Amino acid sequence: MNRLKRIEGQVRGLQRMVEEDSYCVDVLTQVAAVQTALEQVAINVLDGHVRGCVADALSGEDEDDAQVKLDELMDAVRRFSRARP
Amino acid sequence: MNRLKRIEGQVRGLQRMVEEDSYCVDVLTQVAAVQTALEQVAINVLDGHVRGCVADALSGEDEDDAQVKLDELMDAVRRFSRARP
Amino acid sequence: MNRLKRIEGQVRGLQRMVEEDSYCVDVLTQVAAVQTALEQVAINVLDGHVRGCVADALSGEDEDDAQVKLDELMDAVRRFSRARP
Amino acid sequence: MNRLKRIEGQVRGLQRMVEEDSYCVDVLTQVAAVQTALEQVAINVLDGHVRGCVADALSGEDEDDAQVKLDELMDAVRRFSRARP
Repeated sequence: MNRLKRIEGQVRGLQRMVEEDSYCVDVLTQVAAVQTALEQVAINVLDGHVRGCVADALSGEDEDDAQVKLDELMDAVRRFSRARP
Repeated sequence: MNRLKRIEGQVRGLQRMVEEDSYCVDVLTQVAAVQTALEQVAINVLDGHVRGCVADALSGEDEDDAQVKLDELMDAVRRFSRARP
Repeated sequence: MNRLKRIEGQVRGLQRMVEEDSYCVDVLTQVAAVQTALEQVAINVLDGHVRGCVADALSGEDEDDAQVKLDELMDAVRRFSRARP
Repeated sequence: MNRLKRIEGQVRGLQRMVEEDSYCVDVLTQVAAVQTALEQVAINVLDGHVRGCVADALSGEDEDDAQVKLDELMDAVRRFSRARP
């Protein structure tokens, strides 16, 4: 949550930079910083998901649920991978 | 600028999702959407930079300035490439 | 395995292009094709790993082993994510 | 060229690993190494292209050629960016 607050602040900073016509390369540097912060959020959420939902489903009895969780997980990984769809 | 306003809204949406304990996979889908939007911003800024500053510098007389602009450009491209630093 | 044979062929094609001094943009297009093919290999290996080793460990009795498998998995995901280390 | 020879060797190493049924995580580590090497090749080719063809076109008289070169460059950057198409 703190991370997301900080990201909101960074996006507002970006708006200010664009308004003030900042140098393009500085804008790009700031965009890259926001992306890195977002990716960190994604990795954390994914980590919690794998150790929570996915681990529970796999150690449980419901085979169909385990299957659904694994499919969802791989879809999410694919979306965050460097692979093109 | 409109894009950045929309991205700010999306980040606030993410905060709400985390507050309301939304399903992890939905949070991940939303994070991926914000990343795609940010990358679009980056490409647009880079495009403007190449066709503006860089093109001017290269068609100008000042060889040192052209050199600086090309170095900066390649640094920015590297930062947005899939290459690890 | 077939995919890896094809990738080897593509890399040899790249060597030929460099030797024959092909147009840079064509070389870049070919490099991107090899990267996409490799990423597909990575996703397939990861998928097999999650549905095999990781699923087995999580549905088994050995809690330490399950933990190790989850840590390894998240390391691998991180490495293939767009996140910078 | 040396880099591409090394990448060919790495891809053959990957084939051996798959044949010998190596541990998935080790295969993934090796795939990531090949990707990093390829991305380095891409950055080098792009760098040569920008400082060569693109710089020449922009400092030349032919405005249409300069335009074509800039369009091609941005297409290539987009392809190697983390942005989804």
